[in-house]
Amino acid sequence: MAEKNRVIGFDMGGTKMLAVVLDEKYEPCGQAKVRTPVGAGNKETLEAIVSLIHEALDEADAKTKQLAAIGIAVPGPIDREAGRVISMPNVDMQDYALRDKLEEAIGVPVVLENDVNAGTYGEFVAGAAKDAENVIGVFPGTGVGGGIIIDGTLYRGRTGSAGEVGHMIVDAGGWRCGCGKYGCLEAVASKTAIAKDLVHLAMKGQSPTVLEKAGTDIAKIKSKLIRQAMEAGEKPVVEVVERAAWYLGVGLGSLVDIFDPDLVIVGGGLVEKLGDLYLKPVEKSMRAHSMIDSDVGLVAASLGDDSVIVGSAALAWREQE
Amino acid sequence: MAEKNRVIGFDMGGTKMLAVVLDEKYEPCGQAKVRTPVGAGNKETLEAIVSLIHEALDEADAKTKQLAAIGIAVPGPIDREAGRVISMPNVDMQDYALRDKLEEAIGVPVVLENDVNAGTYGEFVAGAAKDAENVIGVFPGTGVGGGIIIDGTLYRGRTGSAGEVGHMIVDAGGWRCGCGKYGCLEAVASKTAIAKDLVHLAMKGQSPTVLEKAGTDIAKIKSKLIRQAMEAGEKPVVEVVERAAWYLGVGLGSLVDIFDPDLVIVGGGLVEKLGDLYLKPVEKSMRAHSMIDSDVGLVAASLGDDSVIVGSAALAWREQE
Repeated sequence: MAEKNRVIGFDMGGTKMLAVVLDEKYEPCGQAKVRTPVGAGNKETLEAIVSLIHEALDEADAKTKQLAAIGIAVPGPIDREAGRVISMPNVDMQDYALRDKLEEAIGVPVVLENDVNAGTYGEFVAGAAKDAENVIGVFPGTGVGGGIIIDGTLYRGRTGSAGEVGHMIVDAGGWRCGCGKYGCLEAVASKTAIAKDLVHLAMKGQSPTVLEKAGTDIAKIKSKLIRQAMEAGEKPVVEVVERAAWYLGVGLGSLVDIFDPDLVIVGGGLVEKLGDLYLKPVEKSMRAHSMIDSDVGLVAASLGDDSVIVGSAALAWREQE
Repeated sequence: MAEKNRVIGFDMGGTKMLAVVLDEKYEPCGQAKVRTPVGAGNKETLEAIVSLIHEALDEADAKTKQLAAIGIAVPGPIDREAGRVISMPNVDMQDYALRDKLEEAIGVPVVLENDVNAGTYGEFVAGAAKDAENVIGVFPGTGVGGGIIIDGTLYRGRTGSAGEVGHMIVDAGGWRCGCGKYGCLEAVASKTAIAKDLVHLAMKGQSPTVLEKAGTDIAKIKSKLIRQAMEAGEKPVVEVVERAAWYLGVGLGSLVDIFDPDLVIVGGGLVEKLGDLYLKPVEKSMRAHSMIDSDVGLVAASLGDDSVIVGSAALAWREQE
C-alpha cells in the first residue's frame, strides 16, 4: 500500500477555483486552477471540482491513493457536521452534501471548512502566526471575516459559526450592516464601508482619481484604486481610509481585551494593497482601544491567498490523525 | 497521613471577607466571615486572612492537614503566575506576593484568581452552567465583569487578563468609561451607567422614589432602589434600565457571534435584584443583535455570592490534580 504522503488544499472562490497538492511540510507539489463555472448548479460544479483535483494530481505527478485527505474551503456558511454547503455568494452551489458527494467521487476523506477559518489556520500552520497558541485572525475585505485559534486549535463554537468578529457591534445604532444589524465592524471598517464613502467623494468632486477610474460605481472600487487615490495625495480619501482603520482598531482593541491573545493577524486585500498606509493607523487605534496593558503583536498575514490552501489542507490532514 | 478531602474557597471582598470549607462535592462544611479591615496594609490584611481561615476550619471541624488547597478570589487584577495581588479597590493590599505569603503561613497550596473568573467557574462547576462546555459569564454591577470557559477550561489568555468583556466597545465615541476609553459596555450598561441617569432624573424631578431614598447622590443608588422605582411605575426609570439592558444585549449578541457559546450566563446585583424586569429586555436585545441564527441559552447565574467561593475552591483543587 502506498504511503499517504500528499494532501489537497482546495480554495473555492467566487471567480476561480484552485486545487493544490501539498506534501507533509505543506509545500506545493502541483496545482490546477479554473474559472468558477457560472450558472452550473450543484452537480456540474461538483464535476468541475473533481476534474480540477485530478488535474492537480497529474501536475504533481501524484496518485489518488497517495492522498491522505482533501480540505475544501468555501466562501460561505457550512453545516460542518453534516458536510453540507449551505450557500455561497457567486458560486452556484447551495444546500448540497459536498463532503459526501466528493468523497464518493474521489474515494478520499474530505473536510469542509469556511475559507476565513481555513485562512487563519493556514497562517498558524505556516505563516505569520506560526509560533503562537492563541490567535485572532481578521480579514477586512468585502466583509470582515474572522478566525480564532485557542490553544493551537481552531475554535468553532457550538454550531460551528464562531469567529464572526465582523459582526461584533462597535457603534450601536451606527451604519446599517449587510446582516441587518447596525454598527457592526463590517459596516464601518470593511472595504465596502470605505467604498461607500469613496463613491460619495467621487460624486462630490473630492476624489478625481476615483472618479476617473471607477466613476461613481461602488462595485468598481478595488483596493488598488484606493491606494492610487491615497498616493495621489487626495486627503479626503486618506481620511476615509484612516477612519475605517480607526474603527477596525476599535474592534481589535476590544478583541484584545476579550481574548488577551498572543498575536493578532490582519489579512486580505486592503492589507495586501495598502500595507502600512492602512496597518499603521489600525495598530495605533487598536492600542488606544485596548484596556489591557499589552504589547500583543499585530502583524500582516504573510501567505496571501495560499493561507486558505495550506489551512484547508492542514485541517483535513490533522483530522485524519 | 490524613486524606486531603477538604478545600477552602475564600472571597476577598471590599466590605467583607468570607472563608468557606468545602468537601469533595463542593458542599459547605463550615465558614467564617469578617469585615474587611480598613487601612490595614499588606501584612495586617494577611493576618486577618490567616485567622479567618483557621476560624472556618474550626467551624467545619476540619484540620489544616485535610486541606488539599486554598483558592482565594480577589476583586482586582493579579499576576497569576507570580501569585501577586496588583491592587484592589477597597482592600488595603497592593503589589503583594499573597500566594507565597499565605502558603508559608498555612502550609497548604494557594491559588489566586480574579473574582469574576472564579464566579464564572463556580457557575460552571455547580451552578447555572453545569452541563455546558463553552460559556460566557457576564456580571453587570459597579463595572461589567466577564469570564470565559472554553472546552470546560477557564480561558485566561496570554497575560491572564482575558475575559474583559466589560471593555469591549459597543458605542465608539460614546460615554466615557472608567478605563479611559469611550463607549465600553461597562460605560453604557453597568449599574453605574444606570445610576448616572437616575441621579439626573432625580434632580429633574422625574423619579420621586430615587429622590426620596438617595437624593441626588450617585453613590447611594443600589440595585434594590432601582427595582423600587421601577415598581412604583416611574416610567423614566424603566426606560433608563431598559436602555442599559438593550446595550448589554448589544454586547452579548456580539459575544454570541464571536464565541458561538453553549450558554450565556448573567449574574450580579442587577440580575439578582431586578430579575426579569432586567433579563427579559437583555435577552430580547441579545437575540436581535446576534447574526448567528442561534437558540443559545441566556440564564441567570444561580449560586449568587457562592459562585466565587465554589469557583475559587474548584480552581485551586483541580490545579493540584
